[in-house]
Parts: sequence; structure tokens; C-alpha cells
Amino acid sequence: MASRTASPLIHPDMDDLDLFKIMGALTDETRLTIVVTLAASPGLACNGFTRDVTPSVLTRHFRVLREAGVIRQHDEGTRRINTLRKEELDQRFPGLLDLVLKESVGRVTPYTNADCA
Amino acid sequence: MASRTASPLIHPDMDDLDLFKIMGALTDETRLTIVVTLAASPGLACNGFTRDVTPSVLTRHFRVLREAGVIRQHDEGTRRINTLRKEELDQRFPGLLDLVLKESVGRVTPYTNADCA
Repeated sequence: MASRTASPLIHPDMDDLDLFKIMGALTDETRLTIVVTLAASPGLACNGFTRDVTPSVLTRHFRVLREAGVIRQHDEGTRRINTLRKEELDQRFPGLLDLVLKESVGRVTPYTNADCA
Repeated sequence: MASRTASPLIHPDMDDLDLFKIMGALTDETRLTIVVTLAASPGLACNGFTRDVTPSVLTRHFRVLREAGVIRQHDEGTRRINTLRKEELDQRFPGLLDLVLKESVGRVTPYTNADCA
């Protein structure tokens, strides 16, 4: 199996962020839950999210979020760390992320510490 | 064929507007073009949009926008008139529609008068 570092993680530049791609990424409930969780707990590892979805499905959701520019991923050893690109999103699309986080209350339940490895 | 007025046009109340349903509705390029056109020309008839898409496909796109609460439709005789629910959207999700309209520049081309019946 190739090591994780073999394939570089592509992140769109802030200027290339696409509002419609981001909105599309956020209409999925699992991805929204990831975003809500990361807003509360930055720097979680991919395998810290274990509830309800299989690892391969989860990896796909993380990739969609990364390619849309919603999250940043980097590897630390064998762990892939995820953070929300909140400052960049706030700068590029003022108010959007706050609106999304506000409207997600009662709609999705953030992954709790108990669910995180 | 049943008359248009036979089936009532359902519109969600402002309090029931769902950000994620709205974002999903706006990620489609034809629907975004409709929104951009209505922002510039309120009160266009459904059959005023004739470019590129068949009437039945267009009707479906209008329904998605109406059911998401993005537009309001009402019948005047045989014409179905469309308006953007801009004030309600601005009140419920401040900044969202302005962001969408700003980011749509250069991405979609509004239907022009020449395309409108």
C-alpha cells in the first residue's frame, strides 16, 4: 500500500474558492456534521469520526470538503488532520459559514468526544 | 387538461425556509440563471425563459426554486408569474442572496429580453 504522503493533498487557493461548489458540499448531512464538529474541535484526525459511516465513505466526504476548500488536511505520521478554513471562508464569503453553523443547530448533531478516537 | 389553477401553488412560509434546501437549489446552473434573471427583471412569466431548456425541464426547475422558497409564483390568466423572494430571503438569511448574485457574475448569463416572450 502506498504511503499517505505519496499523493499530495490538493487544496484550492482562497481566490479560487467557488461558492456554488461549497454550497453543494454543505448540502450533504454527513459533510455538514463534519463541518459542525470541526468548528467546535479543530484538528481532528480522519479516523476520529467513526459514527454511522464507513471509513471509505468518510474519506470521500473529507475529500469533497477539501476539494471545495471548506477544510484543510495535512498528515502527521499516519494521521490525517482536518481543520476548517474558517478565516479564509469568512474573508472570501462573509457570513456564509456563520449562517451554515447557525442553521445546522438542531439539524445535525456534532460528533462527540465519545465518537472520536 | 386540468387548468393551472386546479393545483394550488405551495410556498413555504418564511419561518420554514431551509438554508440547505436553498443552497441545493442554487447549485444548479439553470436555476441560478433563473434567479439572476429574476433579480434583474422581477415578474417574468415562465414561458419568458425559452433558451436552452425545454418547457417541461424549465417547469421542474421553477418548482424546485418555489418549493425551496427562493421564488414566488402566481397565475395571471394563463401566465405563471415569477418573482424572487428577495426581502424574505434577506431577512431570514442575511447576505446569502447578495453573495449568490455577486458570485454568479461571469458564471451564468442572465436571460436577455430577446429570450423572453
